[in-house]
Amino acid sequence: MTGILAGLRIVEGSAFIAAPLGGMTLAQLGADVIRFDHIHGGLDAERWPVTREGRSIYWASLNKGKRSIAVDLRSPKGRELLTALITAPGEGAGIFTTNMPARGWLAYEELAKRRADLIALNIVGDRHGTANVDYTVNVVTGFPMAAGPVGHHGPVNSLVPPWDLATAYAGAMAILAAERHRRMTGQGQRVVLPLQDMALATTSALGYVGEAVINQTDRPKVGNEIFGTFGREFRTKDDRYVMICMFSDRHVDALAAAGGFEEAFAAIEKKAGVNLKTDAGRWNVRAELNALIEPWVASLTAEEVGAALKRAGALWGPYRTFRELSSDRELVLDNPMFTVLDQPGIGRYPVAATPLQFGAVEREPPRPAPLLGQHTDEILSGILGLPAHEIARLHDEKVIGGPR
Amino acid sequence: MTGILAGLRIVEGSAFIAAPLGGMTLAQLGADVIRFDHIHGGLDAERWPVTREGRSIYWASLNKGKRSIAVDLRSPKGRELLTALITAPGEGAGIFTTNMPARGWLAYEELAKRRADLIALNIVGDRHGTANVDYTVNVVTGFPMAAGPVGHHGPVNSLVPPWDLATAYAGAMAILAAERHRRMTGQGQRVVLPLQDMALATTSALGYVGEAVINQTDRPKVGNEIFGTFGREFRTKDDRYVMICMFSDRHVDALAAAGGFEEAFAAIEKKAGVNLKTDAGRWNVRAELNALIEPWVASLTAEEVGAALKRAGALWGPYRTFRELSSDRELVLDNPMFTVLDQPGIGRYPVAATPLQFGAVEREPPRPAPLLGQHTDEILSGILGLPAHEIARLHDEKVIGGPR
Repeated sequence: MTGILAGLRIVEGSAFIAAPLGGMTLAQLGADVIRFDHIHGGLDAERWPVTREGRSIYWASLNKGKRSIAVDLRSPKGRELLTALITAPGEGAGIFTTNMPARGWLAYEELAKRRADLIALNIVGDRHGTANVDYTVNVVTGFPMAAGPVGHHGPVNSLVPPWDLATAYAGAMAILAAERHRRMTGQGQRVVLPLQDMALATTSALGYVGEAVINQTDRPKVGNEIFGTFGREFRTKDDRYVMICMFSDRHVDALAAAGGFEEAFAAIEKKAGVNLKTDAGRWNVRAELNALIEPWVASLTAEEVGAALKRAGALWGPYRTFRELSSDRELVLDNPMFTVLDQPGIGRYPVAATPLQFGAVEREPPRPAPLLGQHTDEILSGILGLPAHEIARLHDEKVIGGPR
Repeated sequence: MTGILAGLRIVEGSAFIAAPLGGMTLAQLGADVIRFDHIHGGLDAERWPVTREGRSIYWASLNKGKRSIAVDLRSPKGRELLTALITAPGEGAGIFTTNMPARGWLAYEELAKRRADLIALNIVGDRHGTANVDYTVNVVTGFPMAAGPVGHHGPVNSLVPPWDLATAYAGAMAILAAERHRRMTGQGQRVVLPLQDMALATTSALGYVGEAVINQTDRPKVGNEIFGTFGREFRTKDDRYVMICMFSDRHVDALAAAGGFEEAFAAIEKKAGVNLKTDAGRWNVRAELNALIEPWVASLTAEEVGAALKRAGALWGPYRTFRELSSDRELVLDNPMFTVLDQPGIGRYPVAATPLQFGAVEREPPRPAPLLGQHTDEILSGILGLPAHEIARLHDEKVIGGPR
């Protein structure tokens, strides 16, 4: 391993998105991330999307580059093996991350008896420890009630799970913060990250709580428009969509140049008494701007619109479906971040490495996800020093398993 | 400062969400984060939402706990001051994060001439350096084409900016990874994080690229349903909405207990030949489940439904608007993460501290955002050692400014 985090070992007990993605993020930076699962697979072992044969593409995508150990989590022997693994000695070891209930044998206090400087990140549903997922947390933030098409009654959920993503990356950051603290003081610690608090803190950071209290307003649904400046989707002659935005002076000038809107923009400014080079100005005349841009986009193909916007340096993007994205040269096939991998049991498809480019190290190509328990034997032998006959016996006793 | 990152100093040249939120995340963990802006404010100084007086609630929310220095970015003297600040000596200093064009005097190579072990995080629009925002990146990921109500034609954008959030937290993590590397090797480096690659890598991690290539399908719009298991919104008797999900055996049993659905669930299983304790089973009979749950929820008030679901330990959440959230006892007013702050120029409202609870340090209460240039003088004096008369002269020459 030659990544920026080479030498760090993290044992992960996880399921679904937040914890696995956090661990994968560190694995793709060179950490040795060992995910343990129950001998028959965890809660997310068969999570959709799956292949026609029922193999989880979801699981494979969220666990790339990790090692996998499969253990009977209910057996005392299995628990003892994992306790030993989590608390194994070594400078970059002794880091445990989980979104499983960290109680009983997995409680920090229990584990810390075996290794005083243990670092544990416990991702919990909310500050009381109640179970939550992105979907149940998202609904309380206020976003679904303000999202979706104008005139639509009721909530519109997010398809991207934003709070899982935030928790994954902030959790990975927290592990590095705690490891820095241990490096400086020798001290371990438990870090608790409630998914719900992550969502609420971010909602606060984005200004929504302040706006609601200070202005005493709830945002109306504005569809695909960007509140407080200019941006929305436009439909092309060939029934495609492009997103066109203006966030700065430069974007106003570029869009004017792309569409030949210089005079029309000036006329709108004059008539409405606004300045298009301010956020408020653009927002206030968005209806006039839409009425100008709509027919222009509608008169051109997506390729023609894109070429004009690109040439002028406008702020825009073409809408893609997942399938279009997956076969897009610029975005995926020619993007050096992607490598076509053969994921055992699933097949060949483009897989992303880390998006982070560290100057001090080469970016490592992505590695496949493990099969369940693929590394059980090598971990028990390499880290815990178990002899082959002992490992064989544990297999016979069904305390450990894999690969499968 | 007593946070987990005490002793770390980061100079930030930023605008909008990703870079400011990344910096604020570190500031709320105790790092000394100094945001510099043009003397009249940056691109996002007046970004909406704003108060009735035009003060940006957005800016205040994304820059809490930072120090602010305001400098004429076009003047050679101003640039020299910032170069000196970015490259100032000190073990935890020499860290620069920006999403401004890192060219010319802000290029890594230029800055590194003054401090060889400089760490710089450059957030860029895409791998070619083209400008992008969350909105223009989101459209290429595929999510908007698959999001939104069933039957809705065309894309539905995300109201939460997921890729800004991912970039903010992953960027903060990258700074700590690079600082760890410097601590171990003495070596600085430039880290590049393209917003678009962040979005594409995460889309890959969530399985969408794999699904598109392997199964050759595009996800249809499924509205508020959770693909591949069970979950959606339900409307109560008093016209409120609740999200109800089942991700595991326990959630199936809990929902059955809450609604008295034990026999009905068994009948659905028998008739359709499915097992509700599998993802596929729940997904395949979601229409039958919806038909069962809808009238139950519709016959009760939101309070009654919530009480029943909570008592049974179901996986659920109540929808809230931003205003409801902001005055919610459980979520905000009684949540120890929030403190009511007086944000100068804006007013009093609940503001979140970091959602991360580190066992080794007390969580610090949130601090207000600075006024533009509030700390100009103390930074020039305290870090660069400029005498008072020199600072006064720089003010007179309009090289520096603030507070305002």
